[in-house]
Amino acid sequence: MSKHGLKRPRIVLLGGGFGGLYAAKSLRGVAAQVTLIDRRNFHLFQPLLYQVATGGLSPGEIASPLRAILKCQANTQVLNAEILDVDPARQIVHLIDSELEYDYLVVATGASHHYFGHAEWETLAPGLKSVENALDMRRRIFMAFETAERESNLENRNGWLSFVVVGGGPTGVELAGAMAELAYGTLRGEFDNFDTKDVRIHLIEGTDRLLPSYPPDLSHKAEAKLKKLGVKVHTRTMLTQLGEEEVTVKKDGRSEKIQARTVLWAAGVEASPLGRKLAEKAGMKTDRAGRLNVEADLSLPGYPNLFVIGDLAAVEQDGKPLPGVAPVAMQQGAYVGRTIRDRIAHRNSKPFRYHNKGNLAVIGRNAAVADLGFIHLSGFPAWLIWVFVHIRYLIEFDNKVMVLLQWAWNYFTRKRGARLITGEDLLPALRGAASEKERRSRP
Amino acid sequence: MSKHGLKRPRIVLLGGGFGGLYAAKSLRGVAAQVTLIDRRNFHLFQPLLYQVATGGLSPGEIASPLRAILKCQANTQVLNAEILDVDPARQIVHLIDSELEYDYLVVATGASHHYFGHAEWETLAPGLKSVENALDMRRRIFMAFETAERESNLENRNGWLSFVVVGGGPTGVELAGAMAELAYGTLRGEFDNFDTKDVRIHLIEGTDRLLPSYPPDLSHKAEAKLKKLGVKVHTRTMLTQLGEEEVTVKKDGRSEKIQARTVLWAAGVEASPLGRKLAEKAGMKTDRAGRLNVEADLSLPGYPNLFVIGDLAAVEQDGKPLPGVAPVAMQQGAYVGRTIRDRIAHRNSKPFRYHNKGNLAVIGRNAAVADLGFIHLSGFPAWLIWVFVHIRYLIEFDNKVMVLLQWAWNYFTRKRGARLITGEDLLPALRGAASEKERRSRP
Repeated sequence: MSKHGLKRPRIVLLGGGFGGLYAAKSLRGVAAQVTLIDRRNFHLFQPLLYQVATGGLSPGEIASPLRAILKCQANTQVLNAEILDVDPARQIVHLIDSELEYDYLVVATGASHHYFGHAEWETLAPGLKSVENALDMRRRIFMAFETAERESNLENRNGWLSFVVVGGGPTGVELAGAMAELAYGTLRGEFDNFDTKDVRIHLIEGTDRLLPSYPPDLSHKAEAKLKKLGVKVHTRTMLTQLGEEEVTVKKDGRSEKIQARTVLWAAGVEASPLGRKLAEKAGMKTDRAGRLNVEADLSLPGYPNLFVIGDLAAVEQDGKPLPGVAPVAMQQGAYVGRTIRDRIAHRNSKPFRYHNKGNLAVIGRNAAVADLGFIHLSGFPAWLIWVFVHIRYLIEFDNKVMVLLQWAWNYFTRKRGARLITGEDLLPALRGAASEKERRSRP
Repeated sequence: MSKHGLKRPRIVLLGGGFGGLYAAKSLRGVAAQVTLIDRRNFHLFQPLLYQVATGGLSPGEIASPLRAILKCQANTQVLNAEILDVDPARQIVHLIDSELEYDYLVVATGASHHYFGHAEWETLAPGLKSVENALDMRRRIFMAFETAERESNLENRNGWLSFVVVGGGPTGVELAGAMAELAYGTLRGEFDNFDTKDVRIHLIEGTDRLLPSYPPDLSHKAEAKLKKLGVKVHTRTMLTQLGEEEVTVKKDGRSEKIQARTVLWAAGVEASPLGRKLAEKAGMKTDRAGRLNVEADLSLPGYPNLFVIGDLAAVEQDGKPLPGVAPVAMQQGAYVGRTIRDRIAHRNSKPFRYHNKGNLAVIGRNAAVADLGFIHLSGFPAWLIWVFVHIRYLIEFDNKVMVLLQWAWNYFTRKRGARLITGEDLLPALRGAASEKERRSRP
């Protein structure tokens, strides 16, 4: 199975996201046999997926091959395989075509979207967790503009020019901001049969302010900036129904309809199914989002050599749950790597503690909000910090200097070159306007 | 339908490839109502698709939105629609959801692959004409390496590490060269269970030399360079059978089997189906590749206002057919644009004549062959010319300076960052090794 000796402890890492990758990196040089397993062959920089969805970046620019990242780490093997289940009692991971024994296991399989019990919404409103999701969103967004150009009926055209973003957290705010830049900036003047001023971008948030996990002053700055960009912000508004041509929302007890052909999902998140399977085996329960409670050292209760990190772990600190963001997963990954090192060397380790260096959300082309704890920033200074932090992480893995340049290029030219409508299922979309007419002509 | 007056002549261009786009550009400023129709919303720089297939570039880097390219051309509208048929007698183009009258029509819908009557080969051996094709190839190539890493049976593993490129024209040569760079350069040292030295890359060509359309000395230089890179070159070899695990070829009358799980198609090409439809309506025949014979001004016989250009037109010059390459389509597009200008102004125009500035094919990282007519170049000088020519065209459309930088970056680092295995149908591929075992264990 491997070039390493058999007596070395076998450390298996499930998932090549921020958690798994940082665990792998912090195990560099350890006298152990490390195996990182992911069903994808690349690490994805998820915080920039909204840029792929809106045509600003290509998937290849925010993904790095796991093998390339870990190439120089002699104790680590990368396996590209589907993970089926874990048997914590026998210390075995079941893959789709084999099984793997472990001495230490790190489960970091992340989360996916969640449609609050409306699984049928998924086909109408794609989320933003994978490259395929982002390309699906990109296809829908640009196809909507193309269909509007061909549509002669004004009411139908307005439906194609209306976009709803569900969820006012960081992803929803970033997506709505990028949509506004796209419609009112990049695409202005490119269509003959309508003006992009007619485009409507709605952002729907259930609580009373955007970015509910941020301090209120930054929420209000984000809302003001989005409104200035042209986004219609609806707070205290719940999505109740989702149709092909319209969205029904409830605000202050009143039902309201928004005509829109394109709905983008940036709301619920649910831990990967492996969490529930693991909980069942360990005789415990997950929380409502499918996450597992863990000990102070992030191990599963009763299984001191099995660690759960990232979006799959429900960790509280100072009475508040840690958010499902990249820095938490990164710090947990690095912590678990150090803890396993300590265990192998029979040293004690301290409990995990998250050091919050700040929260950042970008709003359009040159504004952001930043909660750095000691100071709240907004506008261009916050945007500069946002760019710096994101590029720094990208470069850390893969020397993605190119993305910085691409970014600068897009910034100064307002161009979005990655606006491709791709996918084999183009024809139904191209037929959109026609089938619409047919349907309408029926009694 | 448009912002332009009704008395202006209506010029319709079908296809946004090199032909259609150069026609559109040469119609800039003409007092006419120009409509460019394509089923895709982008122009694709097809000569670099092999780089997408081998993980060197992302699709967004070799595609430019048609709207962005033609944004500043006030007389031109871009329509993203499926073209169904043309009625040359009534001068109407049938789109999937509407129809369009024209005074002048330019048909430039290009070509697709052709499997010499073996349509069933398409699923086993993807071609390289669209972004989807290239991503399919990329998925198969990188999935083969990942499957080999998981495969413990040596014979099966060798099957996954064996690649066959069918067709020794420029595309096949470029693809085989890039595969060699990938396997023996980029991926070296990234796998634990095999050495990439075990990878086999076979290039199959039916005639007696590679690049049959080039002068023989360059063919031999290309073959020598590919062999030096590690490619097994098989000339005078015909593909006779294609299976999931092996390829059967015929050489000098003898049948031979090559074990290979991944076959890449770079052989036959066939004109788009619109050609045959048009031929039927015009009461003429296409040639074997589905192309239409045209007059000296590239118009369809009997229809002086209907022009056929690019891969859809069969044009002879000095007794030899013009090749289906980008420069021919570009010059034909520009010519037809000028000819329509002349017609509108009641001026005469000269017959079309192709000015061959040279043929180029790249072989791996820093070698190429160039036939510039007055001189034949190979090796690094030819490669420099190749880079210069390709980047020049990319920049012309969309200021793709970024691609130049990406290129330089890949060149110096030997990195290929766009190595993503994507697509919703990952699971069957991940199951590859398992189903293989199951199948083998059955009697």
